[in-house]
Amino acid sequence: MALAQLVAERPPPAAAPIAPPTQPAWRTRLVASLHSHEKQSHSRYVQLATVRPDGRPANRTMVFRDFVSHDDDSLVFVADSRSRKMKELAYSRAAEVAWYFPCSREQYRLTGELDVVDGTTTEPNLIKARRRGWATMSDSARQQWVWPQPGAPRDNDPAVWTKRAPGPDEPPVDTFILLVLRVEEVELLVLSSPSTCTHYSREVGPDGNYFWLEESLNP
Amino acid sequence: MALAQLVAERPPPAAAPIAPPTQPAWRTRLVASLHSHEKQSHSRYVQLATVRPDGRPANRTMVFRDFVSHDDDSLVFVADSRSRKMKELAYSRAAEVAWYFPCSREQYRLTGELDVVDGTTTEPNLIKARRRGWATMSDSARQQWVWPQPGAPRDNDPAVWTKRAPGPDEPPVDTFILLVLRVEEVELLVLSSPSTCTHYSREVGPDGNYFWLEESLNP
Repeated sequence: MALAQLVAERPPPAAAPIAPPTQPAWRTRLVASLHSHEKQSHSRYVQLATVRPDGRPANRTMVFRDFVSHDDDSLVFVADSRSRKMKELAYSRAAEVAWYFPCSREQYRLTGELDVVDGTTTEPNLIKARRRGWATMSDSARQQWVWPQPGAPRDNDPAVWTKRAPGPDEPPVDTFILLVLRVEEVELLVLSSPSTCTHYSREVGPDGNYFWLEESLNP
Repeated sequence: MALAQLVAERPPPAAAPIAPPTQPAWRTRLVASLHSHEKQSHSRYVQLATVRPDGRPANRTMVFRDFVSHDDDSLVFVADSRSRKMKELAYSRAAEVAWYFPCSREQYRLTGELDVVDGTTTEPNLIKARRRGWATMSDSARQQWVWPQPGAPRDNDPAVWTKRAPGPDEPPVDTFILLVLRVEEVELLVLSSPSTCTHYSREVGPDGNYFWLEESLNP
């Protein structure tokens, strides 16, 4: 731990911050990676691993939508409440995202727990994030949430695939949920000469505030 | 299961095939997806999920090297015997690969168990695959297997990062291993109008031969 450094110390959630809280170094870097790949729409596509009730891993591609807010570094994804991953989350909320940026040859691994945000959520920040997630999708994307049960045998009635979903300004349908990744650890691998690997972990200091511990590792 | 079809029936491993065995439909399609993306070298990059000893998922980007052989549909990856994923495999060999092709908007999820192929392996087919894996890497790629312990605190001695590895025609170093994914299930999602989802599972028939069951699912 000789190389460990304290970075991005933040006030506890209850305290009123004097200045805007500093975002952690990994978030600043991730935003820069996204910016440098903005011409490739699939640079927002990440792979999200969870664990099935039988203990085997599951892995699928998801679209990164946004961070919850300026002050909340959790990652937002949209999902269908009827999808199989919801059964996995009832068993374990642990998740790891692998996110590879081909041009900069950077890989982020983001580890944490997934929170489900649905129509019963009462936290204003998350209600807002869910409404924003719904409103910013295209008409054809919103339509998926009124399709038949995902993963069931194919429904061959053409009418069920052309049902219209509520519009962007209407409330989201009940099947529309957010998955919010509460990040606890990040590992950034940069394939260059020489390659580097940086590990960030969210720790609680003796004063009860949390901070991000940064350590340089062998790649 | 009304849409289930039997496809790509194959002779049992012990029988001498009269004609070359038919490859499963998912492999034929995956080879076509690779072919249509051959100008993008990172189209061979996939995300491999495993489970950690504490039950949480792990997820990282790996390079698909090849299938084991014409007759063996298992996927080959190269790895370092000192890497953290080896501790995960000692706990559970279950794995799922997520593989997204951006131009064709196809996602393959390949589920199965990982076999480790190292210097003690005696099966001729796998010894050959390991030698081929070593020989077909660049000098700088082979060098990684003589670097210091991956994931340990960064070694700041420049000399340890410039050690030369044995050449392509020399035997692989002991730390060089293959991870071989024995595929049991494949799910192919194609994002198009209309989107489709096809599930393939490896089943054993009443005659003891195995076959791939194909089913069309709601996306």
